Amino acid sequence: MINTIILPEPTLRRLPWYLAYIDILKAQKVEHVSSTQISRALNVDASQIAKDLSFLSLKGKTRIGYEVDALASTLSDFLGFHTPHKAYVFGAGSLGKALMQDSGLANYGLNIVAGFDVDAAKVGSMVGDVPIHHIDSLEEVMEADPATIGILTVPADKAQDTADIAIGEGIKAIWNFTPYRVKVAEGIVMSNTSIYAHLALIYNRLNAER
Amino acid sequence: MINTIILPEPTLRRLPWYLAYIDILKAQKVEHVSSTQISRALNVDASQIAKDLSFLSLKGKTRIGYEVDALASTLSDFLGFHTPHKAYVFGAGSLGKALMQDSGLANYGLNIVAGFDVDAAKVGSMVGDVPIHHIDSLEEVMEADPATIGILTVPADKAQDTADIAIGEGIKAIWNFTPYRVKVAEGIVMSNTSIYAHLALIYNRLNAER
Repeated sequence: MINTIILPEPTLRRLPWYLAYIDILKAQKVEHVSSTQISRALNVDASQIAKDLSFLSLKGKTRIGYEVDALASTLSDFLGFHTPHKAYVFGAGSLGKALMQDSGLANYGLNIVAGFDVDAAKVGSMVGDVPIHHIDSLEEVMEADPATIGILTVPADKAQDTADIAIGEGIKAIWNFTPYRVKVAEGIVMSNTSIYAHLALIYNRLNAER
Repeated sequence: MINTIILPEPTLRRLPWYLAYIDILKAQKVEHVSSTQISRALNVDASQIAKDLSFLSLKGKTRIGYEVDALASTLSDFLGFHTPHKAYVFGAGSLGKALMQDSGLANYGLNIVAGFDVDAAKVGSMVGDVPIHHIDSLEEVMEADPATIGILTVPADKAQDTADIAIGEGIKAIWNFTPYRVKVAEGIVMSNTSIYAHLALIYNRLNAER
C-alpha cells in the first residue's frame, strides 16, 4: 500500500522516527507497542503519534497497543521504502560519489542507476555499481533506464542549469544537496538537504553555548 | 568575526543560500549586489534578506547595494566556515565513510579527524586521511586530538548509546544522520539531517503528483 495523499511535512519527518524505533523493538522480538511507549522513547506527544499513525489507517488496540511487526511493515510500505525508486546523481564529486556508494539508501527504496558529470576523466568510469555518463548523454540514458529522481551534487554555480536540464529530460523530483537554492516549476518535487545550513546551525549554537 | 549570538534557525538556513549565490557573483567578477537582485535570484523576500544580513552588521548602500567581495567573506566568516571545527565520525559504514571522504566539508570548516567503529576489521584502517579507532579508545583519542562535534552514522539501534558515550567523553554537538531520534541533555547541540525523511517526502509528493 503506497500512499497517494499528500501528507503534512512534519508528519513525514516523524514517521521515519517511529519506524526506526519500531524496527529496534522488532529486532528485540517485542510484540506490541503503545503510543505512550513510543512517546516516551522519542519525546513526541502521544496524541500526535496516534494522529500521525491514523494516516496509515492503523489503530492501536486499547491496553495492548499496536502490533510491532504489522506496524513496521505497514509504515515502511507506506513511506515507500519497499518500492524501488530510480534516481540519477548529477555531479560525481566527493559527495556524489559518496551517495552512489552508500548502500544504505537502497534499504530505503532509493535505487541510483546512473551518475552524470562533465569531467572527461570521470565519464565512462564506474562508482561502485553505478556508471558515470556525460551529461550530454542524459536523453539516451533516460530512454534506456529512466529515472524520476535527480540528486543534485554539482558545484553551486551549476545547480540551476543542471536541474533545468534534468527536468527538461523528464526528471520529476530534485533532491538538492548543493547550497544553491534551485527554483523549479510547479509540479516538480523539490527537496533540499542543506548540509551547510546544518553546519552553520551547529557552529552558531556551539559558539553561543560557550 | 565569529558570531556568538543565537541566530534564528530560518536565518541560518537562508544565509548559506545567499553565500552560495554571492560566491557565484564573485566568480563572475560582479562588484555589487542589491537585496532586490538576491531576492529575484533566490525567491526570498528582499526585506527578509536585508533583515537577515543586518545580523552581520552589514548594510547595503542605497542604489549600489552590497560589495560582493566583502559580503562573501563576511558571510562565510560569520557562519564559521573559515574556522576549522574538529569532528569525529561514529560509525564507519557506507555513509560514515562517505562523509570522511567528502573533501567538500573542509571548505565549510568541518575537519573530521577520527572515525570510530566496533568492527575489528575496520579498526586500525584509514578512510582517506581519517584513522578508524575502536569506540573504546574514545577517551584516549579525545585527549590526543579533541573534537567538539560527533557525527552519528551508526545503525539506528546504536544511535542513543553512541551519542551518550560521545557526550560523556566531552563531545558538545551531535550531528545525527541516523533515522533514530536521539535525546540529549540541555546544553548539548543537536542537529538532525534526516535523509530518510527527505526520501519519504520525495516519494510522497511524487505519488501525489501522479
